[in-house]
Amino acid sequence: MTTLRHVTSINDLANEEVDRVFDLARRFLAELGDTRLKGRARGRRTSQRIGRSAHTGAGSILANLFYEPSTRTRLSFESAMLRLGGGTITSADPASSSAAKGESLADTVRVVSSYADAIVIRHPRDGAAKLAAEYASVPVINGGDGAHEHPTQTLCDLFTLSREKNKLKNLNVVISGDLRGSRTIHSFVYALARFGANIMLMPGAKGMELPAHVDWRLRNEFHCRPVPKEKYARESAVDAAYVTADEPHQLSLMASPEMEFDVKLKKGVDVVYVTRFQKERWADQKQDYMKVDTNFLKDKRYKRSSVLHPLPRVGELDIALDKNRRAAYFQQASYGVPVRMALISMLLDFDADHALEKFESGFRAGKYAIYEQPRKIGIKCANPNCIVHDPQEGAYTANRFQFIASEEPRLRCFYCETDIENFLAGHRRWRHYEAADAGLAAPGTKRLKDVIFFADAAEAKAAGYSPGRSAAKAANA
Amino acid sequence: MTTLRHVTSINDLANEEVDRVFDLARRFLAELGDTRLKGRARGRRTSQRIGRSAHTGAGSILANLFYEPSTRTRLSFESAMLRLGGGTITSADPASSSAAKGESLADTVRVVSSYADAIVIRHPRDGAAKLAAEYASVPVINGGDGAHEHPTQTLCDLFTLSREKNKLKNLNVVISGDLRGSRTIHSFVYALARFGANIMLMPGAKGMELPAHVDWRLRNEFHCRPVPKEKYARESAVDAAYVTADEPHQLSLMASPEMEFDVKLKKGVDVVYVTRFQKERWADQKQDYMKVDTNFLKDKRYKRSSVLHPLPRVGELDIALDKNRRAAYFQQASYGVPVRMALISMLLDFDADHALEKFESGFRAGKYAIYEQPRKIGIKCANPNCIVHDPQEGAYTANRFQFIASEEPRLRCFYCETDIENFLAGHRRWRHYEAADAGLAAPGTKRLKDVIFFADAAEAKAAGYSPGRSAAKAANA
Amino acid sequence: MTTLRHVTSINDLANEEVDRVFDLARRFLAELGDTRLKGRARGRRTSQRIGRSAHTGAGSILANLFYEPSTRTRLSFESAMLRLGGGTITSADPASSSAAKGESLADTVRVVSSYADAIVIRHPRDGAAKLAAEYASVPVINGGDGAHEHPTQTLCDLFTLSREKNKLKNLNVVISGDLRGSRTIHSFVYALARFGANIMLMPGAKGMELPAHVDWRLRNEFHCRPVPKEKYARESAVDAAYVTADEPHQLSLMASPEMEFDVKLKKGVDVVYVTRFQKERWADQKQDYMKVDTNFLKDKRYKRSSVLHPLPRVGELDIALDKNRRAAYFQQASYGVPVRMALISMLLDFDADHALEKFESGFRAGKYAIYEQPRKIGIKCANPNCIVHDPQEGAYTANRFQFIASEEPRLRCFYCETDIENFLAGHRRWRHYEAADAGLAAPGTKRLKDVIFFADAAEAKAAGYSPGRSAAKAANA
Repeated sequence: MTTLRHVTSINDLANEEVDRVFDLARRFLAELGDTRLKGRARGRRTSQRIGRSAHTGAGSILANLFYEPSTRTRLSFESAMLRLGGGTITSADPASSSAAKGESLADTVRVVSSYADAIVIRHPRDGAAKLAAEYASVPVINGGDGAHEHPTQTLCDLFTLSREKNKLKNLNVVISGDLRGSRTIHSFVYALARFGANIMLMPGAKGMELPAHVDWRLRNEFHCRPVPKEKYARESAVDAAYVTADEPHQLSLMASPEMEFDVKLKKGVDVVYVTRFQKERWADQKQDYMKVDTNFLKDKRYKRSSVLHPLPRVGELDIALDKNRRAAYFQQASYGVPVRMALISMLLDFDADHALEKFESGFRAGKYAIYEQPRKIGIKCANPNCIVHDPQEGAYTANRFQFIASEEPRLRCFYCETDIENFLAGHRRWRHYEAADAGLAAPGTKRLKDVIFFADAAEAKAAGYSPGRSAAKAANA
Repeated sequence: MTTLRHVTSINDLANEEVDRVFDLARRFLAELGDTRLKGRARGRRTSQRIGRSAHTGAGSILANLFYEPSTRTRLSFESAMLRLGGGTITSADPASSSAAKGESLADTVRVVSSYADAIVIRHPRDGAAKLAAEYASVPVINGGDGAHEHPTQTLCDLFTLSREKNKLKNLNVVISGDLRGSRTIHSFVYALARFGANIMLMPGAKGMELPAHVDWRLRNEFHCRPVPKEKYARESAVDAAYVTADEPHQLSLMASPEMEFDVKLKKGVDVVYVTRFQKERWADQKQDYMKVDTNFLKDKRYKRSSVLHPLPRVGELDIALDKNRRAAYFQQASYGVPVRMALISMLLDFDADHALEKFESGFRAGKYAIYEQPRKIGIKCANPNCIVHDPQEGAYTANRFQFIASEEPRLRCFYCETDIENFLAGHRRWRHYEAADAGLAAPGTKRLKDVIFFADAAEAKAAGYSPGRSAAKAANA
Repeated sequence: MTTLRHVTSINDLANEEVDRVFDLARRFLAELGDTRLKGRARGRRTSQRIGRSAHTGAGSILANLFYEPSTRTRLSFESAMLRLGGGTITSADPASSSAAKGESLADTVRVVSSYADAIVIRHPRDGAAKLAAEYASVPVINGGDGAHEHPTQTLCDLFTLSREKNKLKNLNVVISGDLRGSRTIHSFVYALARFGANIMLMPGAKGMELPAHVDWRLRNEFHCRPVPKEKYARESAVDAAYVTADEPHQLSLMASPEMEFDVKLKKGVDVVYVTRFQKERWADQKQDYMKVDTNFLKDKRYKRSSVLHPLPRVGELDIALDKNRRAAYFQQASYGVPVRMALISMLLDFDADHALEKFESGFRAGKYAIYEQPRKIGIKCANPNCIVHDPQEGAYTANRFQFIASEEPRLRCFYCETDIENFLAGHRRWRHYEAADAGLAAPGTKRLKDVIFFADAAEAKAAGYSPGRSAAKAANA
């Protein structure tokens, strides 16, 4: 049986699928003409453009549901679909859509599924794309959901790196800016880790570090090895660094992260990735945000760095760099169309050689057991901006988590992928609770079905559960 | 001579034309693939989709002028035109259109007529579509005008019934919700009556009964026979019920409505049609609005009912029903595209076999005499939300009415179709007034041209008219 | 080498190019069918419409970036591109675009250049189109920038005149309304002068006269000869009048403007061009704005006048004129699509015979020397609404001017084309300043590079410059 594929996270695509997106994107790029060519010369190309690709999408429709401001993402998706010969239908403004009448996202995507062949969604809430995918009957592409992920931006970023640097493996990448609020960065670091790049994080200001759950996933799911802080203490702006083992399955044979970091940094920084302050994700206004300019780049380790930025910029990237040979951000933006053409083509089977595989989902699928909880009681997603807490969507979302059976077990929200640590498991039958332990998801057992998780003892008690033996002991200690 | 056809009311289409819309919609539906098929299997169908229909509309343009929020209607019209191979131009937001500069609808549609081959209009004012049709030089389709009508929604609703129930005649239909504010219901009840269904009305709350003029039309123009209230008193929620005679021309031979109601209700309710509270049409907020849920449907008479809803819903239709076999509302929504494809095709002559007839207008045209009044004096439309009372449109609208020569004569606003009863007729020559009487529109006479109608004696006197003999007698009585 | 062509001003097109736009527009108009034909007859034409033109633009994309409300201009551009077989991507609402995130226009157009083959821009700031053109790598079309220009409206206006009057030369044109705030009028008067029409200006209210720099250009750059005021004093509403010499190169051989005016006005006014009060360009509300109605037109000199209006209207043009044979404004609106089809075709080389010439720019290019000034000191554009004063765009604009070496030299802002008179030139080397003189731009010299211009003595002194000999003398006088 075939399975409907969505791209709600960069991790919905396997590495080989990302490679195939790029193969196809290169072909489209060649057909569109190199964007470095200017003006009239491009105009002439028009008639040739109506070549192989321009009708592959004819008769197909892409729906764009944007619940947040966007120019770049929306217009590049629309351009991509038009270049493929298809059509687009767009809702760009929440105030003039049925959301203004109080309609839920779940209802909207079910209906729009019968108007279009694929849906792009942008939404202010983390996890909204996953909710949309749950209810859609056509492929859903995440065009940015809250502070969660922005996978197609990451595809463009990776494609730029693959063109600028001819490889992804072993690249040294500095990522700077609002690491907490930028969905773009969250998708990007996962992808860098998966493709074997080394990552140095440079928060734009205090409090803008990478979220704890993203850091945890880098280390525990994506084979990143953190470099001890002393190693890069001289770099005042660097907050964390990871090296990615060359061969994940040979991790134990490898040198220490420190040694690797030394070796690898000798060749300098390959990429500086800058992002703006995500003012819409912060309650308070920024104070001192970093600025990348000629001064920043004069350190010799940036000599061959490509500077990337997902744009828009609002001051953190000096316009004096625009003509600098290291500036790659407009080139990066120009790949938005061919890369999205490729992804759409593959999702919609326009190209027999490049369709997405029909397995369950992308890179990480099926790894963790799913915990689904009765609606009224028990633990809730800890992220207040998660789609499950949206009053309009509440009725359509479940308290559903992935149960991660690590030593300290974790619950990962099915929608926004934020983790909860330190929670309690109440046994439904005996109505007592204990600290959650990894054994609950042991293969062959079905114990996850027997428990309800609680955030803390107060919650458990309110639900009529009493402490089990070890919980009582812990309380007394 | 050929006549430009518009669809401002469901009554602009004759029954046979509705049937032809459905024939064509069925063909499009087959080409699009049954929407019950999910995901990739649909994707594959893309290449076949570019079959017979996909180029019939090539080179044609549909303009969408939306002065009120919409996702569903606008996107489904756009999708329909794109599936036909045509293009769309859209103004979805009054604030970013020339209406913000103070342009009238009349001017806008005259100009947009030269940009597009047909115009869909949605507007907060009752009768706006009719005004647009008066000034457009291309077909105008009403996408919902105030609380007046929403004929294409009704086409989708009827099409759903014809697929779910295989017929329209003799269906027992319960209609619930905001019967006063819902334009969807107004178009729907006319259509049900015309196709011979029986109607039970269940207002969502007090004050939400069907408007008096709609009720009058059902009884007097569409052969509906009201069932005496005692008959359904046990149904506390039912406010009014009508049976439609099987053969309108044999009305006198038929049993009484009571008897028919008994016989017909034995087979149970075929359809429950639910609508949301139309908050934008009400000054005050709702108190206790009805809710259709499993509890509501457990009565055995709903055993085989299909549940329909034009969507969006905001609480009046329990999401727990979504997986119920009786839920037909997402299926209903999925017919939006093929039905609108069919209507557009027929209006624009894309299909030689299915063009709309070239007669003056639809079901009821030309029946009543038209009364047109000098702008400054006399009676005005009684509906404060009518387009004639919009300050921006005032100059472009006339005080124009259909004169309905029933025993108690009525004036029906040409735009919003709201009726006025009990008004006075002033004789222009003798400048006296009397109660209006049916004889004014007698064939062969031209007496309508000789009179000016007034709402009441005060208005007549202010205009310099004095009571005629019978008016004076009535005043003295 | 080929040069990228933009249309930011009507003067970016040479007269012969305007003629070629009209040739092509006539062909498209014939293909679309005469818009005077109504309704179904037009529908039938659909299949023929997919003739020569309908696929010339296939595969091409037009981007519409609208930072100000618009229906007419945006929809007609979109319609034009669709009729050519191309596609459109549109940002119609600043609030739902990346401008809401603080992105500059310069960044936006650079990115959108890689999404589309041409860009139409509308913006509230004067000169915004020129800024966009500076950064775009595809052709930019000005869809109206502040109170500066609206060249495609002027193309439609001229095309209407050429069809209504069969010529442009020697037409007598009355232009009424908000001559100060209407960008439409600014483009229009330049074009009228260039094509040899005579112009009478009739401001809609006090303070609405043509801006001084536009008047100066008419007289000094476009060969208009002002008629002495006594000549038309009897016409209380006329504020200024110009005759255009039949043969510019024989100016000295011609009769006086007075004599010409007499002769030319004998045939009456050919065109009355009405415009609305541009409320969005004025801080204060209008008092008594003019109204063109039957009364206005009853003067016998308007007997054969065509009445034009760019629309929307808001009261200054009586709707009672709509059915008057002289009303040409809806016809004018209907030319919006074929004229824009022609312009797009030519800019994008869709038609080998009609491409724009590959010379530097249009009518006036290269005439004046360019003065570019260090950012921090010296003179600034005197127009507070110029794009250079937009806080979001400031960093991307230069203080750049054309230096007009007339007897009294002028600086013309490179972006908004507003002139500055009476300014000072500081010599960079000797750091003293004098009144600017025409000699600075003498051919062969490079003295413009040696100076910095200042608005006044205070500004020069603040920058550390002292008065030169003649400046000192003037100060003492």
